[in-house]
Amino acid sequence: MSELKFEISASDSNSSARAGKISTGHGEILTPIFMPVGTVGSVKAITQQQLREDIKAQIILGNTYHLYLRPGTEVLSAAGGLHAFMGWDGPILTDSGGYQVFSLAASRKISEEGVVFQSHIDGSRHLFTPESVTDLQRAIGADIIMAFDECVPYPSEYAYTKDSMELTHRWYERCKNRMVETESRYGYAQHLFPIVQGGVFDDLRKASAEFASSQNAPGIAIGGLSVGEPEEKLYEVCGMCCDLLPTQRPRYLMGVGTPWNLLECIALGIDMFDCVMPTRNGRNAMLFTGEGIVNIDNKKWEKDFSPIDPQTDSLVSTHYSRAYLRHLIKSKEILGLTLASVHNLAFYLQLVGEAREHIIAGDFTSWKKEKTERMKTRL
Amino acid sequence: MSELKFEISASDSNSSARAGKISTGHGEILTPIFMPVGTVGSVKAITQQQLREDIKAQIILGNTYHLYLRPGTEVLSAAGGLHAFMGWDGPILTDSGGYQVFSLAASRKISEEGVVFQSHIDGSRHLFTPESVTDLQRAIGADIIMAFDECVPYPSEYAYTKDSMELTHRWYERCKNRMVETESRYGYAQHLFPIVQGGVFDDLRKASAEFASSQNAPGIAIGGLSVGEPEEKLYEVCGMCCDLLPTQRPRYLMGVGTPWNLLECIALGIDMFDCVMPTRNGRNAMLFTGEGIVNIDNKKWEKDFSPIDPQTDSLVSTHYSRAYLRHLIKSKEILGLTLASVHNLAFYLQLVGEAREHIIAGDFTSWKKEKTERMKTRL
Repeated sequence: MSELKFEISASDSNSSARAGKISTGHGEILTPIFMPVGTVGSVKAITQQQLREDIKAQIILGNTYHLYLRPGTEVLSAAGGLHAFMGWDGPILTDSGGYQVFSLAASRKISEEGVVFQSHIDGSRHLFTPESVTDLQRAIGADIIMAFDECVPYPSEYAYTKDSMELTHRWYERCKNRMVETESRYGYAQHLFPIVQGGVFDDLRKASAEFASSQNAPGIAIGGLSVGEPEEKLYEVCGMCCDLLPTQRPRYLMGVGTPWNLLECIALGIDMFDCVMPTRNGRNAMLFTGEGIVNIDNKKWEKDFSPIDPQTDSLVSTHYSRAYLRHLIKSKEILGLTLASVHNLAFYLQLVGEAREHIIAGDFTSWKKEKTERMKTRL
Repeated sequence: MSELKFEISASDSNSSARAGKISTGHGEILTPIFMPVGTVGSVKAITQQQLREDIKAQIILGNTYHLYLRPGTEVLSAAGGLHAFMGWDGPILTDSGGYQVFSLAASRKISEEGVVFQSHIDGSRHLFTPESVTDLQRAIGADIIMAFDECVPYPSEYAYTKDSMELTHRWYERCKNRMVETESRYGYAQHLFPIVQGGVFDDLRKASAEFASSQNAPGIAIGGLSVGEPEEKLYEVCGMCCDLLPTQRPRYLMGVGTPWNLLECIALGIDMFDCVMPTRNGRNAMLFTGEGIVNIDNKKWEKDFSPIDPQTDSLVSTHYSRAYLRHLIKSKEILGLTLASVHNLAFYLQLVGEAREHIIAGDFTSWKKEKTERMKTRL
């Protein structure tokens, strides 16, 4: 298995937070990092220039399920991979499609072999196996590839969760074997992360974290959280997993979460995050700002000509006013979706960047407390 | 009436085309020029940075009808006008709302006084008069204000067209008086253009062009064209009007048109254009390129990884491939609407810029012929 270079430059003395650097074939990623979600080869409503320059994204996420259905790996292979296809030259991480097969597909049937599912677009039938999703992610050209897993819903029975976790482990081994049997597609290294599952059961999470830790994997993901469990449970499970995972490997918490979720989980030792929240909530008029939460369609912003967020160092956040963004959203103008999404992502990227600085400066814990309080305020 | 400075730097010897410069309180406009349409305070799906940097727009158009309904002039006045509200510091021209009242409103009743209409949004009743739309455009802060007019549909009876034209003339005089009675709102000059009407009837167009020419107006618009009449009729009426209008004033042909319409009408002596075609057609997958017309949702572009249009000097046109844009449009991704709109507008702005260069270079007519042929090709 090829090496993914990860250097830790600073560790917080009052928490498990660390500041690091991941080196990929498409450049370096300073951690902790948030990865904007580019579902179907596009971070919704945002150009690659805005991603790079305004949002300062360092790595983005692609969804294998979506990209497999559209445009398909035949097109992506012909393009020379997703980077070339979409015009993004930074690192890309892809999920395995497992989550979408269970949450989006019109129907699915799971077996040891894999999952047969029907497309949510046209009802056509498809089979995903650990081997096929590994091949798909190879073809997409992901710098970081996720193992095929089953993400159990919350709540789930112990027995089901345990069986599912064991299946996820067996599937990881098949993905790992497939990675060894196949080559990187486009001249740069591709790295496979196993996923820790186990629901909210301590012994299962422990078993799964220990399994993942024993694999000499280049990085490890924690999945199956932020699926409806209480926030304290998320932190408890995340913290327990982090404590069991090897220090010298990047840790990726999948699908999490709010800005304060990020800070709390950074404190627990997480290095990488992704979530549709900044873009999806933005499209639904909810903005995260340095001063707190803004529901931009509220009448109170009608004549507020102050910037969307003077504390977020992005052109969109400072050039456009709350009144203008409210007007766009109320008038259902497409530009409203773009500005809200760019702002929220810029806010997230700035947040993890500041977290990194405070970890290095040594005052992360006190900064986190104050920042969290402010961010949660409803304006 | 305040002066609007318009200098003609070159005139074509083989046609009536001219290259000029309009000076406004928000900067200079090199003519011939195309004005992107920013209906509700936003050129649909496009940021003001993209307008300025990628599209190289020099002036944009706002729709009084839409802005009056949303966000309303109370908000726009509080913001300090539309420029400040939307964060666009270039010149803005507003239409009078006449066209939308007749084409969009749920119902309307016209009288000498003005037009009572029902909002297409909530059915509420409103009255537009020449005085009120002048005040509205003052409040919006338009650099160039259009007189209130009735745009008759095609075809219309002679008698109706004549009565309507005479009403439009009386309404212009009321707008002109209102301009004199009121002040510029935000510290820069605002200029009123009369509109030539008269349908497709030569004597009416002649009468209307002579009326407009006699007003010592800072510029003159030609309305009521591109409303369904044959293309030859558009050129015939446009040419006849241009021949009657004063040379030293900018001429604005409203709502026109295709790229070849622009070149043909530039040859007839038009300086300014606006049209929703580049953005609306773009959102419907139709691209204008230097090589011809591209229906980007066509299967033939599925694996065409060449730039959207290598001949259009915009980042969007050269950074993204046809295959990628096709994928976005097929997948109904918002970014597809943005990229298609930015490209088409960049194409339009480059086209009028090239027309200007060729007028100055003296080979406009031969260039126009060759360019038109290429642009009309269906790829």
